[in-house]
Amino acid sequence: MRGAMTANWIATDWGTSRLRVWVMDARDQVIAELSSARGVNLLGPADYEPTLLDLLERHLPRRGKLPVLICGMAGSRQGWVQAPYVSVPCAPPDVRQAMAVETEDKRLDVRILPGVSQSDPADVMRGEETRIAGFMAAHPNFDGVVCLPGTHTKWVQVSAGEIVSFRTAMTGELFALLSDRSILRHSLTDKGWDEPAFVAALQDAMGAPQHLTARLFGLRAESLLENLPPRAARARLSGLLIGVDLAGAKGYWLGQNVAVVGSGGLAGHYVRALTEQGVAPLRADAADMTLAGLRAARKAAA
Amino acid sequence: MRGAMTANWIATDWGTSRLRVWVMDARDQVIAELSSARGVNLLGPADYEPTLLDLLERHLPRRGKLPVLICGMAGSRQGWVQAPYVSVPCAPPDVRQAMAVETEDKRLDVRILPGVSQSDPADVMRGEETRIAGFMAAHPNFDGVVCLPGTHTKWVQVSAGEIVSFRTAMTGELFALLSDRSILRHSLTDKGWDEPAFVAALQDAMGAPQHLTARLFGLRAESLLENLPPRAARARLSGLLIGVDLAGAKGYWLGQNVAVVGSGGLAGHYVRALTEQGVAPLRADAADMTLAGLRAARKAAA
Repeated sequence: MRGAMTANWIATDWGTSRLRVWVMDARDQVIAELSSARGVNLLGPADYEPTLLDLLERHLPRRGKLPVLICGMAGSRQGWVQAPYVSVPCAPPDVRQAMAVETEDKRLDVRILPGVSQSDPADVMRGEETRIAGFMAAHPNFDGVVCLPGTHTKWVQVSAGEIVSFRTAMTGELFALLSDRSILRHSLTDKGWDEPAFVAALQDAMGAPQHLTARLFGLRAESLLENLPPRAARARLSGLLIGVDLAGAKGYWLGQNVAVVGSGGLAGHYVRALTEQGVAPLRADAADMTLAGLRAARKAAA
Repeated sequence: MRGAMTANWIATDWGTSRLRVWVMDARDQVIAELSSARGVNLLGPADYEPTLLDLLERHLPRRGKLPVLICGMAGSRQGWVQAPYVSVPCAPPDVRQAMAVETEDKRLDVRILPGVSQSDPADVMRGEETRIAGFMAAHPNFDGVVCLPGTHTKWVQVSAGEIVSFRTAMTGELFALLSDRSILRHSLTDKGWDEPAFVAALQDAMGAPQHLTARLFGLRAESLLENLPPRAARARLSGLLIGVDLAGAKGYWLGQNVAVVGSGGLAGHYVRALTEQGVAPLRADAADMTLAGLRAARKAAA
């Protein structure tokens, strides 16, 4: 038997802007956690294997193969190898449905988990299905909605161990575009926060989502005419976008058990927004759920 | 008296991305039209005078001063000299309210027209007030709403020769950000158009604006799953954004006389969108109205 510090398999979250790996031992415990900025948006198909070999150098076996299980955008059309979607309703995909990737280096046994798709309305996820698998492993009897805030926020209806339906909104990507690249960048700051301003904008957008694109320009106008503090402008921008998201996703969260799986400030803003609507969401950390989901996906084959 | 080909004054539209001048003779006729890509977003305060001298070289007087009347973002905080706003309700500002700019070269007599502001809800315009002045000069009895499609689309209530109130939506800027810089760029094309797709998205967004940010991601998902044609994705993106704009601006256009002052495809899309709602808008060209507005602003002093 290999020692406790010998890598038994590699859990991998390969997203758009970040690569994160957990080196796992034979008892399924983490012996090292590594990460890199070499996300999918920086890589061509030929770059994946060298990136992985680089990062895993110290953990490669002298003989035999090291299993590497990957979730996330590495399985997309713009990624390493396309891992076709599994369609809802479905359990989160596991290693038996993963796409095997041929590598030059024979010490690697790479498998990429599929994403999940929905045909009507058309929607896709890659990576979130694995966080959901992790959340289900921790809450086996959960029946309700999992909200995964992010660049593309997902609302996912989960029942009897399956993903039933889901909805994606471009909330995080719009926030980034508007605060970094639009006229609003002059009026915002990347620091600070104004919670009452966030809540007021949230309620405003939920009640009158048709005013979104005018309220956005209003942040610029108030900044010019009334010296709106940048931290208030930033909180209001977030409140407007999350408010429209919640208004549109009401069919998902209203009267349901809700869990927010995310990290950092954004997850906190969704929790606050849901709490304002009388929902008391469970919370779980995104990275923890990813690791738990990769563990569950691997175990399914045992 | 100077000859007909001698410059009597210069009508100038100095916007964010473009500088446009009309060289006018003593009978107020255009003797030359010049333009440059040296818009406000490329210039520091010291760059304006050399840019103008460069462009006007052949038209500078041997003696005396050449009046240059400017509208647009050159009068903003990020511009040449800040020309303070006039507050609604007000007639479009004229040369008597313009800000005189001191120049090194004594052959220039530069004046920048103010923008117009509104305090509740906070809103601002710079340049559009001059197009409105031009439209009013051509339609002295117009009472209704002028829609000016653009990066920041304006809806302006005009009555008895005054700007009464207005509303700005970030429609054009969002379209540009989403089609050039978001995940949607992979699914769109900068050519082609699908009118039925535009109209369907328009109606969808007007009826359910709370779904905007999810419908945006839906374009990406349909492109991945169903090979949505890029020209249809582009038309739908436009329809969704214009639909939310029209839903929010309903208080402006419903049951009113409406005029669309704009140019190119975008103005056409607004005309089509309004026509779908049973409005039969007047149409006028943006550049024509700018020139007419600068003429009217100058004449006010006579």
